[in-house]
Amino acid sequence: MSDLVASETLQPVLDLIDADLDNAIKRLQGFLQIPSISTDTEYAPDVRRCAEHVTNDLASIGLQATMHDTQGHPMVVATDDSAGPDAPRVLYYGHYDVQPVQPLDEWNHPPFDGVVIDGPRGRRIVARGASDDKGQLMTFVEAIRSWKSVHSTLPVRVVILLEGEEESGSESLAPFLKEHKEALSADTCIVCDTSMWDEDTPAITSRLRGLVYIQATLHGPSHDLHSGGYGGSVVNPANAITEILGQLHDSGGRVQIEGFYDDVDEVSKWQVEQWNSLGDADALVLESSGAKATFGEQGYGTLERLWSRPTCDINGLWAGYTGEGAKTVIGATASAKISCRLVASQDPQKIEAALFAFLEDRTPVGCHWTLKGFGAAPAIAVPTDSPWLSAASDALTSIFPNPAVLIGTGGSIPVVGEFQEILGVDAVLVGFSLDDDLIHAPNEKYEVSCFHRGILSHAAILEAYGSLHAYPPFPFVGNHPRRSRGLFDHRQQCGNRQSVAGG
Amino acid sequence: MSDLVASETLQPVLDLIDADLDNAIKRLQGFLQIPSISTDTEYAPDVRRCAEHVTNDLASIGLQATMHDTQGHPMVVATDDSAGPDAPRVLYYGHYDVQPVQPLDEWNHPPFDGVVIDGPRGRRIVARGASDDKGQLMTFVEAIRSWKSVHSTLPVRVVILLEGEEESGSESLAPFLKEHKEALSADTCIVCDTSMWDEDTPAITSRLRGLVYIQATLHGPSHDLHSGGYGGSVVNPANAITEILGQLHDSGGRVQIEGFYDDVDEVSKWQVEQWNSLGDADALVLESSGAKATFGEQGYGTLERLWSRPTCDINGLWAGYTGEGAKTVIGATASAKISCRLVASQDPQKIEAALFAFLEDRTPVGCHWTLKGFGAAPAIAVPTDSPWLSAASDALTSIFPNPAVLIGTGGSIPVVGEFQEILGVDAVLVGFSLDDDLIHAPNEKYEVSCFHRGILSHAAILEAYGSLHAYPPFPFVGNHPRRSRGLFDHRQQCGNRQSVAGG
Repeated sequence: MSDLVASETLQPVLDLIDADLDNAIKRLQGFLQIPSISTDTEYAPDVRRCAEHVTNDLASIGLQATMHDTQGHPMVVATDDSAGPDAPRVLYYGHYDVQPVQPLDEWNHPPFDGVVIDGPRGRRIVARGASDDKGQLMTFVEAIRSWKSVHSTLPVRVVILLEGEEESGSESLAPFLKEHKEALSADTCIVCDTSMWDEDTPAITSRLRGLVYIQATLHGPSHDLHSGGYGGSVVNPANAITEILGQLHDSGGRVQIEGFYDDVDEVSKWQVEQWNSLGDADALVLESSGAKATFGEQGYGTLERLWSRPTCDINGLWAGYTGEGAKTVIGATASAKISCRLVASQDPQKIEAALFAFLEDRTPVGCHWTLKGFGAAPAIAVPTDSPWLSAASDALTSIFPNPAVLIGTGGSIPVVGEFQEILGVDAVLVGFSLDDDLIHAPNEKYEVSCFHRGILSHAAILEAYGSLHAYPPFPFVGNHPRRSRGLFDHRQQCGNRQSVAGG
Repeated sequence: MSDLVASETLQPVLDLIDADLDNAIKRLQGFLQIPSISTDTEYAPDVRRCAEHVTNDLASIGLQATMHDTQGHPMVVATDDSAGPDAPRVLYYGHYDVQPVQPLDEWNHPPFDGVVIDGPRGRRIVARGASDDKGQLMTFVEAIRSWKSVHSTLPVRVVILLEGEEESGSESLAPFLKEHKEALSADTCIVCDTSMWDEDTPAITSRLRGLVYIQATLHGPSHDLHSGGYGGSVVNPANAITEILGQLHDSGGRVQIEGFYDDVDEVSKWQVEQWNSLGDADALVLESSGAKATFGEQGYGTLERLWSRPTCDINGLWAGYTGEGAKTVIGATASAKISCRLVASQDPQKIEAALFAFLEDRTPVGCHWTLKGFGAAPAIAVPTDSPWLSAASDALTSIFPNPAVLIGTGGSIPVVGEFQEILGVDAVLVGFSLDDDLIHAPNEKYEVSCFHRGILSHAAILEAYGSLHAYPPFPFVGNHPRRSRGLFDHRQQCGNRQSVAGG
């Protein structure tokens, strides 16, 4: 399907990818059929089975693949040094674990069947993890598979790291990176867990929001009470939690946690204009969310709010009787899962403490809280002037109808910060999901066209990276040399469809 | 155990009750072991099985017992006319259905085993329904069983009505009462679903709060969203529902639904003083609820709030992800079950409409509600000057260490209003549960001493009622003749422990 004029080395790889697409889909289906839900301990054996599955698959390509036990779920590491000791070394990151599937009855197909159905953009694969992140990580695995099949050797040295705890806090990640720092050392890193601007416009993500996630339970009476016998005599924790959490935002949508905005920088007018020039973000959000109106902090546009403003969201809420029918009960407790997306210099520990204090300061008479943190990560910006990013951008542009653009994301990928901090390597965030992929929701899907172009793109990136000399890892270098081809060049080529320097 | 000097007719009945107690407990256990949860359709076969069980039991005593199908769960009716056509006819009401058992993991014994364990007040029976209402209704069934066993005939004509939908809205009750008005006609009615003041002080309940119960679901996006990709761009229904429900009360605990207090009468100072003289209600509430502080509408004492002030409570609340661990999701919907306890002349339909309007008026941009009512019933006051109430009070006083007192209840027993309206008969509310029986909560129990004294009391009431002449049913009489023995007499006998005319 690709109409680019590729090199004599790349072209047969692209041809094989085209020819082998249906087999690649079947392999992805087998991967999707393992319910590797990392956040629910009941699924721990499935998570392990999934790690074994992908380890075996990587070994079958000809990589040195090993499954490593951790305190949590296993890490999978696979290497290929066929390019020789002088070739650049590229670290690829993905995660093989997936989100829970509730509410199950809203799925039109079982979430772990991995059915392929026809959609408005052609075929799509429907499954939990189809887009986040099994389908995405298989784009680089399939590119490597095809390249190895055609040429036996790769243009770069490769180390693949696949995590099984991305959806459950990544607690084993930092210790693992520290322990295997040498084995994971690389000149650059590709993280494949982000989206495109639209189906024809690939994107590299340079700004990611951070995350604080907590669970809070308010305890009132020692046991559930009859609402007739006790209503009006003691605190009802369900009433109280709505009164407390209802104060998280003011009427303008501004978060009321003390000091929440202290370390938030306003982005430049130029930056905002760049984002606005990308297209009609409101229409994209409304179409992909099914919401009837956009909503958020007053005074900021939708992309500004998503990419440069912090938020506070209740992700789970439960109290009392939630089954069928009526039960006249005052529940002994009321609980919430609450997360904040962070930007710029917001300190996750400080925000977590401020959120806990917000709740504690509002404790109703005679009640108390159980508060638990599920991990915290700061917001991240990756350098946009590196040759790795420019080369990846060019490779993407060579595969897609439209040139690559530089975007932000409202989501959090804590591993990017860990790679910077522990391995000293900046990530290039390349992914092929779309905003309507329903990740974390029922009926998650991945377009076959995205999967296909993603594989082709990674093949092109492999070749482009092979032609770059190895740079020493981040902490040991001052300025990266600038290459003549790069994002800032083709940004000038593409008229209205400008890419954005995330800075 | 009873130390009263009973009549020659009554004494052998009381003796048999004492001797047969362990068998009565075993019969109650068999009844409790059927999980007759009426609000959950999954248990419909068990509810039916429970109706069959109690029908057979009533037939085995020698009553004409019939199970009647309804649109919902079956009604059980049993009659005994052995007292002859001139004897007073007494309608007994109880319900054989029970509340759900969630959260199951907080039960120390399986909720449908009906184990007997030792507690601070001697033996107790632990099960869902032990107190509400299987244990309670078996007090009059066992009294009738013993009386029949000793004397073959009863002192009064008896009609027993046992309902299977009391915990799920009683939708079949009014149609059933209308259809069987003749068969259910009675001179008085005993409803056995209320509590005592304390374990040594029996009580007759004369004021009941009404109830409105609704379920509300707020719909935002068409499906669950990733909180990173969408947080800050569209309404999060979980955030919104806390902001909305958090406005249900002002800082003084006063309900903010428009017109909520329009038809609420202040009770007299005299009435409040009477209630306060009953004892330390705060201590009772704190001990039985396990709460660390009382709480509610400012300016009113605990018994005032429970018996004479309306409330609004969230009985269930759910949104987003409520499983183990962290899920970064914005749920498509957020839901609540909300009930109001009503007093005095509050109109349930008007309050339900005002509650719906409260929610609708606060609908966030682009969202909408699904609103559903689960039934509504007004507050009720029963006449406190009837000979039936006086005779029951005297009978209770003859069994217990302390004289009977007249109290209110925060709960709702809609059947009392239906009996008044459809059958034209006022109820005498006599029950033997305690505030710490954990009804509607895990580890519900019934003290064996309460069960035992309850059976003895009903035997004494049977004899007392047998000595009253039949009065025509309520609508056909002006003033009930006053008898010399009655509540107002013995109130003067009992010093500080005054009973209260509910009025």
